[in-house]
Amino acid sequence: MSKEPIYDPRAPVMVPFHSARPAFMDGIDSPRAYLERCIQVMEAREGVIKAFVNINLEGARRAADAAGQRYKDGRPASVLDGMPLVVKDVIDTEDMPTEYGSEMFIGRQPEWDAACIYWLRRAGVVITGKTVTAEFATRPAGPTRNPYDLERTPGGSSSGSGAAVGAGMAPVGLGTQVRGSVLRPASYCGTYAIKPTYGVITLNGILTTSRGINHLGTLAASLEDAWLTLHWTSRNAGGEISHTHLPGKTQMPAPARPDRLIRLETVGWQSTSDEVKAVFEDFLDLLAHEGCEIIGREDDPEVDRVERMFEDTNEISSALSTWEGRYPMLLWGERGAQHLSEMALKGIEEKEAMDPDAYIHALQRADAMRQAYGPLAGKADACIALTADGPAPKGMNTGDVAFCDPFSLLHVPALTLPIFSFDGLPLGLQLTGFAGNDARLVVQGAWIRDFALG
Amino acid sequence: MSKEPIYDPRAPVMVPFHSARPAFMDGIDSPRAYLERCIQVMEAREGVIKAFVNINLEGARRAADAAGQRYKDGRPASVLDGMPLVVKDVIDTEDMPTEYGSEMFIGRQPEWDAACIYWLRRAGVVITGKTVTAEFATRPAGPTRNPYDLERTPGGSSSGSGAAVGAGMAPVGLGTQVRGSVLRPASYCGTYAIKPTYGVITLNGILTTSRGINHLGTLAASLEDAWLTLHWTSRNAGGEISHTHLPGKTQMPAPARPDRLIRLETVGWQSTSDEVKAVFEDFLDLLAHEGCEIIGREDDPEVDRVERMFEDTNEISSALSTWEGRYPMLLWGERGAQHLSEMALKGIEEKEAMDPDAYIHALQRADAMRQAYGPLAGKADACIALTADGPAPKGMNTGDVAFCDPFSLLHVPALTLPIFSFDGLPLGLQLTGFAGNDARLVVQGAWIRDFALG
Repeated sequence: MSKEPIYDPRAPVMVPFHSARPAFMDGIDSPRAYLERCIQVMEAREGVIKAFVNINLEGARRAADAAGQRYKDGRPASVLDGMPLVVKDVIDTEDMPTEYGSEMFIGRQPEWDAACIYWLRRAGVVITGKTVTAEFATRPAGPTRNPYDLERTPGGSSSGSGAAVGAGMAPVGLGTQVRGSVLRPASYCGTYAIKPTYGVITLNGILTTSRGINHLGTLAASLEDAWLTLHWTSRNAGGEISHTHLPGKTQMPAPARPDRLIRLETVGWQSTSDEVKAVFEDFLDLLAHEGCEIIGREDDPEVDRVERMFEDTNEISSALSTWEGRYPMLLWGERGAQHLSEMALKGIEEKEAMDPDAYIHALQRADAMRQAYGPLAGKADACIALTADGPAPKGMNTGDVAFCDPFSLLHVPALTLPIFSFDGLPLGLQLTGFAGNDARLVVQGAWIRDFALG
Repeated sequence: MSKEPIYDPRAPVMVPFHSARPAFMDGIDSPRAYLERCIQVMEAREGVIKAFVNINLEGARRAADAAGQRYKDGRPASVLDGMPLVVKDVIDTEDMPTEYGSEMFIGRQPEWDAACIYWLRRAGVVITGKTVTAEFATRPAGPTRNPYDLERTPGGSSSGSGAAVGAGMAPVGLGTQVRGSVLRPASYCGTYAIKPTYGVITLNGILTTSRGINHLGTLAASLEDAWLTLHWTSRNAGGEISHTHLPGKTQMPAPARPDRLIRLETVGWQSTSDEVKAVFEDFLDLLAHEGCEIIGREDDPEVDRVERMFEDTNEISSALSTWEGRYPMLLWGERGAQHLSEMALKGIEEKEAMDPDAYIHALQRADAMRQAYGPLAGKADACIALTADGPAPKGMNTGDVAFCDPFSLLHVPALTLPIFSFDGLPLGLQLTGFAGNDARLVVQGAWIRDFALG
């Protein structure tokens, strides 16, 4: 029987950075003291959770002390100054190896920080460690366990960032999502997470297995922490080439109630238990009572059309990933096959066999899906769904992507709120928006969070 | 007084690979013998031309012998099997350093081939060396001299690839172009070159200073060599993420006469001498006599509108480059300022000061220009212009980009034909098309070449 904590959405495992920071300004608390509280949790739980590949406490303490001095001087580098951060191990860091979750890259030391890391260090963040990723951010999973039940997966591929933040080892973790790799581990580990509109943060210096649907996202102890980190990085590092950064100011506006939401089932609904469905439906009823109208596929043929299109998501996303990962995977397959998993080798075979025209076809189908989803913006403020078909499953299979997959492919912002608990395990509520309206989605997400937990 | 050869467009400096290859199939000639003829020219002229940063003749001879064996076995790896290739030193190669034309990166050895190099090696190409690039593919220029006059620039930033192919050291060189860095050196050095539609070849593993307008292009001894290399690479390596490869088959179709061409002046016309203008206009008259109608800004207000928009190209391209090069240039500026040129440091200051919204504005202006140029496709087969405002100038300034710049920003295919000669120096004729119609542009270019030189 598990001795792990029971998940209670109303009892956060840690003080979010955004809530702690005012006390740094006042001199009551400090980045170093905040960091030491994170380190205490790491020391207590990392041994069994195994969230990290590499830890650099010396560097973190030095960075926290430097941040503390800046607060003392009244000149913090940014709203993120002194914030402990854990980083998925597909993102290059100058001071720690970046190993891609692959035996082939053990000890690989990048010469330079990735673009996002370069800018986050300029913001003053305190990087405590690199977190476990599934091999090449796909599969198989690494050794990380779910902080609420060691026999269960933390989700993937951003497994370590999910588990570390979920356990209270850091207020924010960076993750990457091609299909569901940020939101799903957040749902399983009881954290907030945001996957922004596609392209708003450059992926330079990050291993991308399918760059056309690859997103940098944040898993965090609060929606504010997730948003501030994301927006500051987008604004300063800039977007992917020819994509614009997130508009607006970094500071998060006040929560605002959505007037109308579209309830989406996605393909994930088919594998969701009646018990989980009932909890979701009950919550939608509560929202409706509060004046937030809910519509669904039965109310509107265009919504139904989108739901039916979601049946193709798996096929389209798979095709995009297969083609876009040809380089460097084919090259690595030739140079180091003995170090690659069977899953990676099988993926390489598929990549080798793929016809280039099949990629064009998949791009066209993805575009058609975006054309169909886009007009829903005229019908509601956002869409609402589960983030996963239930709490984390037992074993090391990282779970089903069906609830998250479409919104990566659609390039729209998505966030998860860890408001549900089943048998002591967390499950997230997912809110998805429309390309570029990330800020509005987040303030509506904050309202729903306050309503659910307040 | 120069002892260098006089440029004569009708007397090619070497047999193009595409023309030599049938004899490999017949066993009359071989990749190794072809390579040795290239090496003879390298030995005779590299000492003064200085086209190379690194040379790997041992590796090249080994690759040529392996290709020779495949021809003997009747199983060449591709239409490029055994083709000597020189590679601009911003493109990563496993077997030679890649130094970016920067003191900061002397001896930098990439772990992996760039995507294009990986695929070209699979095609059987024989890489003889890495060619000089201006620092970070921008400025200042490296030591390379023009093969037709050592006191003149070979153009930039693909200086070494231009000079090496122009001198007959290799049938094909890879270059990269943000503004004019493939077509201008080709014009100055008397080679053919193609810069394809934006995005049709992945730039993974290539230093990109402005990835949103950065193109991989080929400089070559013939239009066929340039096209075959480009198309094979595009088809196999694939495009930039979310961009499609070049359509159609690799083999180049027969030349075809354009029915109508739009004469474009670009901003470059203002600095073009009357003598050069007269040669260009005379050639257009000859084309018209041959039944190819020529229209210009005086005939059509939409053409005139595009010509006027070209006045903004410099400002827009500069803004895009400034923003898109922030990473890694800001990071490199912090880590190794002492190794950077004054020009690079000045560029870094501009990058640091740039507002992110200025990037969005530049993207919008670029898009407006594409919207204005696109409909010209309904008026003519292609556009025709000079490639530069004259032959290579004296000194090490790499020359003016005004004739090439708009077509990079427009993302349309462009090619240069080395059909003009002034005082023994080459000058190119530029043909530009419309996004995705590269193959048609090339067959029309071949017809114009045959008409001009036949």
